[in-house]
Amino acid sequence: MHEKYMKIAIDLAKKGRGRVSPNPLVGAVIVKDSKIIGQGYHEEYGQNHAEINAIKSVKEDLKGSTMYITLEPCCHYGNTPPCVDEIIKSKISKVVIGHLDPNPIVSGNGVKKLIHNNVEVVIDVLRDECMKMNEVFLKYILNKEPFVIMKNAMSLDGKIATYTGESKWISSQKSREKVHELRSEVSAIMVGVETIIKDDPSLTCRLIKGKNPIRIIVDSSLRIPINSIVLKDNCSKTIIATTNNSNKEKVEKLRSEGIDVLVIDKKNNKVDLKQLMKALGRLNIDSVLLEGGSTLNFSALKEGIVDKVQIYIAPMILGGKLAKTPVGGEGVKYLSDAYNLTSVTAKTIDRDIFLEGYIHRKES
Amino acid sequence: MHEKYMKIAIDLAKKGRGRVSPNPLVGAVIVKDSKIIGQGYHEEYGQNHAEINAIKSVKEDLKGSTMYITLEPCCHYGNTPPCVDEIIKSKISKVVIGHLDPNPIVSGNGVKKLIHNNVEVVIDVLRDECMKMNEVFLKYILNKEPFVIMKNAMSLDGKIATYTGESKWISSQKSREKVHELRSEVSAIMVGVETIIKDDPSLTCRLIKGKNPIRIIVDSSLRIPINSIVLKDNCSKTIIATTNNSNKEKVEKLRSEGIDVLVIDKKNNKVDLKQLMKALGRLNIDSVLLEGGSTLNFSALKEGIVDKVQIYIAPMILGGKLAKTPVGGEGVKYLSDAYNLTSVTAKTIDRDIFLEGYIHRKES
Repeated sequence: MHEKYMKIAIDLAKKGRGRVSPNPLVGAVIVKDSKIIGQGYHEEYGQNHAEINAIKSVKEDLKGSTMYITLEPCCHYGNTPPCVDEIIKSKISKVVIGHLDPNPIVSGNGVKKLIHNNVEVVIDVLRDECMKMNEVFLKYILNKEPFVIMKNAMSLDGKIATYTGESKWISSQKSREKVHELRSEVSAIMVGVETIIKDDPSLTCRLIKGKNPIRIIVDSSLRIPINSIVLKDNCSKTIIATTNNSNKEKVEKLRSEGIDVLVIDKKNNKVDLKQLMKALGRLNIDSVLLEGGSTLNFSALKEGIVDKVQIYIAPMILGGKLAKTPVGGEGVKYLSDAYNLTSVTAKTIDRDIFLEGYIHRKES
Repeated sequence: MHEKYMKIAIDLAKKGRGRVSPNPLVGAVIVKDSKIIGQGYHEEYGQNHAEINAIKSVKEDLKGSTMYITLEPCCHYGNTPPCVDEIIKSKISKVVIGHLDPNPIVSGNGVKKLIHNNVEVVIDVLRDECMKMNEVFLKYILNKEPFVIMKNAMSLDGKIATYTGESKWISSQKSREKVHELRSEVSAIMVGVETIIKDDPSLTCRLIKGKNPIRIIVDSSLRIPINSIVLKDNCSKTIIATTNNSNKEKVEKLRSEGIDVLVIDKKNNKVDLKQLMKALGRLNIDSVLLEGGSTLNFSALKEGIVDKVQIYIAPMILGGKLAKTPVGGEGVKYLSDAYNLTSVTAKTIDRDIFLEGYIHRKES
């Protein structure tokens, strides 16, 4: 029964997509005598929280009612007063929560206050689903680093191009539209400079209607051609991540043309990707779509910055000992060193198979 | 309505699995006044056909009844008299057929005879499903060459081993059991000699209870170590496919030990795989599970001997520019030369994703 109403709260929460960042999506449903009497969601950053909107939507007496909320209600003053106090005041008898506040400093405090005020509390109802909905928020709020999605399109035999380098297009039009949809939802898209040199892409979401993401080019020695599309088209901001290996004059020239050049610490003489993520976090970039080549992808995995992996598999076989694969670099030595994925799902998109999973972090 | 009864006929047909080869699986259902009054299937090679078993299962008058058969009834004498004659004699009024006889010489003859004898005929009901059930039979009967299934287990990024060569085990126990199940269903399993040299496998279906397949080793220069398990264990017959490049004394020695050595024509100084398939067909091998390495897999695709592809994808990323992929060799030069697959399906087996599809033959 709890699941049924929590599901409705989740669906409500999702209506806030794209408008509440960097806040989480939250939905709330109020039920009395097996009837939904009120509902609300966090509609816009800075506006009422979901709980308040739900309470306000009810005219009748809330005594004996149950509130379903996707996230633990806050008990501190932010842009709005603490929701916990409003719930207690409203005489709601029971609160069912999707998951606790991710911030370890306040996590559980809302629940404690409710219990101390004789409100019955149930937690972790559809917890995984509630958390997945806010996976970007959860990563960013806890680590101040962006949530990174590594995306690839490959053939059934794991090639991202023929041995001659042809890669346009392995995946179907529909799959590429899906990628552009995701581009419009993330804060930034990241590629290696090799991709710029080879393909000179625009990295926009031109296949659909949507906001273009910030473009991040990992370019340790600043080899980017000065007339690359991403430096010229003004479709979105471009950030180049480089090291102090790079030519100072070129840095200044790019900066004078409005390009952000971040000089990041080196690791093995390349941009330290972990440091880059911290820098991007400071720039309020909460999510990055990594569309790197083989080499950058392996470095990203090795540096532990990847959270989620998406692979579009096209129903074709290319073969080729020398054809590139989605993840190259040195590779892991033993199977026990593999980057394991959890919660892998598969679905069909047009003629392609779409796989998605999460990098399993080894306990340290 | 037709589909409903045909589905039942298909399920009946499948009961003959493993006992009717090289005949096809066939099921039949007889319906009168919307009631199933009889059913039968081809139970054993050399025994009654499905139609006869179905007719024999009915005591009442067959006039006005409809027979659903997965395959066009035969109109020639084989081990048993023509089913078409029995159907006509039985006074069955209507015959609904899954698909026509694949043999172009007799295809449609059964239908014609039925129509000439005032039996109403409907064809191609659940055609694809009926044909898929007998895909091995259809290939073999038409081409006298085995149906070849190329099987691979790879990581999410398309690697069949780490760059150091570790591959045990990428796929889950459950997936490997599935492979052994398939091994028990095919006539033969085929690998390259490299696999024997590197892994010295037994190529049996030891993980499950079942019949071990014949083992075919493609070994153009007869490099197989004389003490390899497949030459010594007597678990099943072993056939070595080689060329006249090979050492005559070693050929004789192997033959004297009961190993079949087939000397096949050369193509590019290697075993001509197309000729090998013809030779295997002559040995009544109707199905081959290709568990080759990268190089053999590409050759098999290039020579056009592969019918079906099965890939187990483990939820792990290995990376590695030098790590092997399921299909290596030279590879195709352009995307337009890719080996395309049709009817690709995906399902979950334990933690792995299992993809299956059919090689799309280009119209020539």
